[in-house]
Amino acid sequence: MKTMIKNGIIVTMNSRMDVYPDGYLIMEDDRISEVGPMTGYDAYRDRQGMMVIDAGHAIVMPGMVNTHCHMGMIPFRGLGDDCRDRLRVFLLPMEFKAMDRELVRLSSRFAVCELLLSGVTTVMDMYYFEDAVADVMDEMGIRGIAGETVMEDATCDAGTPRESIARGEELIRRYRNHPRIMGCISPHGTTTCSSSTLQKIHELDQEYGVPFTLHVAEMDYEMSYLREQFGCTPVEYLDRLGVLDPLTVCAHSIRVSQQDISLMGSAGSGAAHCIGSNTKAAKGVAPVSSMLDQGIAVGLGTDGPASGNTLDLFTQMRFCANFHKNELKDRSAFPAKDIVSMATIWGANALGLGEVTGSLEPGKAADITVVETDSPNMFPVYDPYAALVYSARADNVRDVYVAGSCLVRDKRPVLCNMGEIREELRQKMNRTPFGEIIHHRKQAPRPQY
Amino acid sequence: MKTMIKNGIIVTMNSRMDVYPDGYLIMEDDRISEVGPMTGYDAYRDRQGMMVIDAGHAIVMPGMVNTHCHMGMIPFRGLGDDCRDRLRVFLLPMEFKAMDRELVRLSSRFAVCELLLSGVTTVMDMYYFEDAVADVMDEMGIRGIAGETVMEDATCDAGTPRESIARGEELIRRYRNHPRIMGCISPHGTTTCSSSTLQKIHELDQEYGVPFTLHVAEMDYEMSYLREQFGCTPVEYLDRLGVLDPLTVCAHSIRVSQQDISLMGSAGSGAAHCIGSNTKAAKGVAPVSSMLDQGIAVGLGTDGPASGNTLDLFTQMRFCANFHKNELKDRSAFPAKDIVSMATIWGANALGLGEVTGSLEPGKAADITVVETDSPNMFPVYDPYAALVYSARADNVRDVYVAGSCLVRDKRPVLCNMGEIREELRQKMNRTPFGEIIHHRKQAPRPQY
Repeated sequence: MKTMIKNGIIVTMNSRMDVYPDGYLIMEDDRISEVGPMTGYDAYRDRQGMMVIDAGHAIVMPGMVNTHCHMGMIPFRGLGDDCRDRLRVFLLPMEFKAMDRELVRLSSRFAVCELLLSGVTTVMDMYYFEDAVADVMDEMGIRGIAGETVMEDATCDAGTPRESIARGEELIRRYRNHPRIMGCISPHGTTTCSSSTLQKIHELDQEYGVPFTLHVAEMDYEMSYLREQFGCTPVEYLDRLGVLDPLTVCAHSIRVSQQDISLMGSAGSGAAHCIGSNTKAAKGVAPVSSMLDQGIAVGLGTDGPASGNTLDLFTQMRFCANFHKNELKDRSAFPAKDIVSMATIWGANALGLGEVTGSLEPGKAADITVVETDSPNMFPVYDPYAALVYSARADNVRDVYVAGSCLVRDKRPVLCNMGEIREELRQKMNRTPFGEIIHHRKQAPRPQY
Repeated sequence: MKTMIKNGIIVTMNSRMDVYPDGYLIMEDDRISEVGPMTGYDAYRDRQGMMVIDAGHAIVMPGMVNTHCHMGMIPFRGLGDDCRDRLRVFLLPMEFKAMDRELVRLSSRFAVCELLLSGVTTVMDMYYFEDAVADVMDEMGIRGIAGETVMEDATCDAGTPRESIARGEELIRRYRNHPRIMGCISPHGTTTCSSSTLQKIHELDQEYGVPFTLHVAEMDYEMSYLREQFGCTPVEYLDRLGVLDPLTVCAHSIRVSQQDISLMGSAGSGAAHCIGSNTKAAKGVAPVSSMLDQGIAVGLGTDGPASGNTLDLFTQMRFCANFHKNELKDRSAFPAKDIVSMATIWGANALGLGEVTGSLEPGKAADITVVETDSPNMFPVYDPYAALVYSARADNVRDVYVAGSCLVRDKRPVLCNMGEIREELRQKMNRTPFGEIIHHRKQAPRPQY
């Protein structure tokens, strides 16, 4: 099966950063087979069986890569946003009272739908009941890494770290040969797992060649605890434990020193930069400029809907531009091109998927996001990178392909019904403590004029 | 003519900050006549001739107030965003080469459409050919203040400040009795007008009782020039000239001292906070917290599309939350309620329109924005303020009323055709130097599947 997208502004994100202002792309089954300018396309060649889609001067870009998410947490979105001790007041108690496999499954279906509609084609997730999350990713067609979270304390899906690790290993094995889905075991953070748990997990992730991702250098108590107990920073601690390597993806990495950045750089570790979540929580701006200088692959992450609220990377790209420019007191810093790189190829590199996705190149997976330029906010387009970072919103995403399958067409999901997914989630939430505090207890009537 | 909106989450923004999670609102001609909870609504009462709209659990909020915009600058959107000396390289030369009355008119039509679609019902504009801008506001139904900009140097619409001032005064007189539109004369800034020009303009604006708005404490050169020439800050300078009073709206006010804030506070002046534009240009974060402490009415502004790119206030609300929380290192600072206040009633207060618009109260103008909660990013809603600030996007705006007229219905403009407006603007741009550098030279074909 061959599909051609023609008359697009093709933003390849390849190593030459080729842009074809009037270009085409051909996908064959699950891969991209050709990309180029319309002038290079021979109109007379065999089109037998080829579906041709006119992009109508939309921007055709690689599917975006969300490097840090907690898809099971949709029920928490908007709960206690401005509360100082929100983690202890809302999150942890509700997680214990209400979270079960079914809620995580329904929340993840909702989240995958939201991600796809916003142009994200690859997501690194980290939560509980991740076997259910991986099944959802599989069924819904997104590319994803499902990280079973491990804590030293009991969690909503396991009584001990040993139990979580066993679940995680089973997950990895189950999806070992899947073309789109990968499992991994994810320690929650540097202080919420013991050093031996961190090492045990790293050993397993390394054995299977899957990412080792955790929250790093994010919290006040994390910084002071490690300083007091071990006299070091979180990154130094990981380095000492021998768990900092090219498979490591440090989520957040806000409070990292130059020395930490050098350690991450020489280890070849990646970073998941969650600027929206970090600044909403007043945690500061990670020194991404220095990370990039050290050659670290930095991707963008939304964090979970409890912390970052929305799951699209357009919001994160715009935050990223403004926060770093302002932080560096230089409007030319973090140009749009670099920010689109973070949202695509650098994010893919951070997750170890740079050979598979993140750019539009022959041989790579056909993971494609088409962003229309018809809406008022998208006119005019001088520079497609700038349009994507400073003008575009998630709702400008028109079509989305993952591994050659069209999953969003004309701003609607192809394989699922968003209304049904929301309704199932709402009904499940109504049977939990979430239902008692929500405005949407009954299905909202459709507006009538 | 009576219209009722029922089954909405009514966010009144009145002085008690009443929210009716299941409420109704009735408008009669151009005004709001009733607001309350559904339980208080008598279903048997006379509905003769009343149109009833079921909001379907949408959030019904006051129309938003954009306190600082340059609607004529749509052709500049996305041009040289990351360029350090953008003002001199792109803006000023293009303004002289390409800007004329017709381009400003077509750009302003486009901008009004974009504003309305994003839920903005009141805009304070400041640019050239503002008589044409005021006509556009009138024709398209938005509420607005059109500020004819005055500079000491020649501008694209006047050779001398005297000429601009005369145009401005004519504009004020023409719209003096208009129910929605007001003209004013707007000095460009503290250093781009002479002190006598500033005083002359202030005298006229005061005579007619219209806002006196200008760029204040925004630029490096502004700070150093006034320091060198007069040994004072921009706000001190305005105070010395006697032009700081309740009619004054200071746009940007980024680099203001505690002393400046006290001066603004005692003068009763307002501020237009343009966080997105300011931080994209690496100019810093205005000390809004201190301004609010001093009782200053602070509204949100997008700035022009050349600087802030998009014209919606949802983007600004989210920027505002994250930047100020992060700046103050306190996640509970600038709670969502305050940020929605800035986007509505405080913005109206800043422009001197607090008695007219900015809240849903009987007697006030029926300026209403209805934000659907059906889209994936809008679920769930625990707190409508949080949903508006942290989850909502401009495209969630479903219906918009200004002075009781429905101008947006089901996400489409009622009175105009966006495609035609864009096409007219594009064609005009193609006849100017903008056309030479734009991707969209021809009309984009519609996508075909």
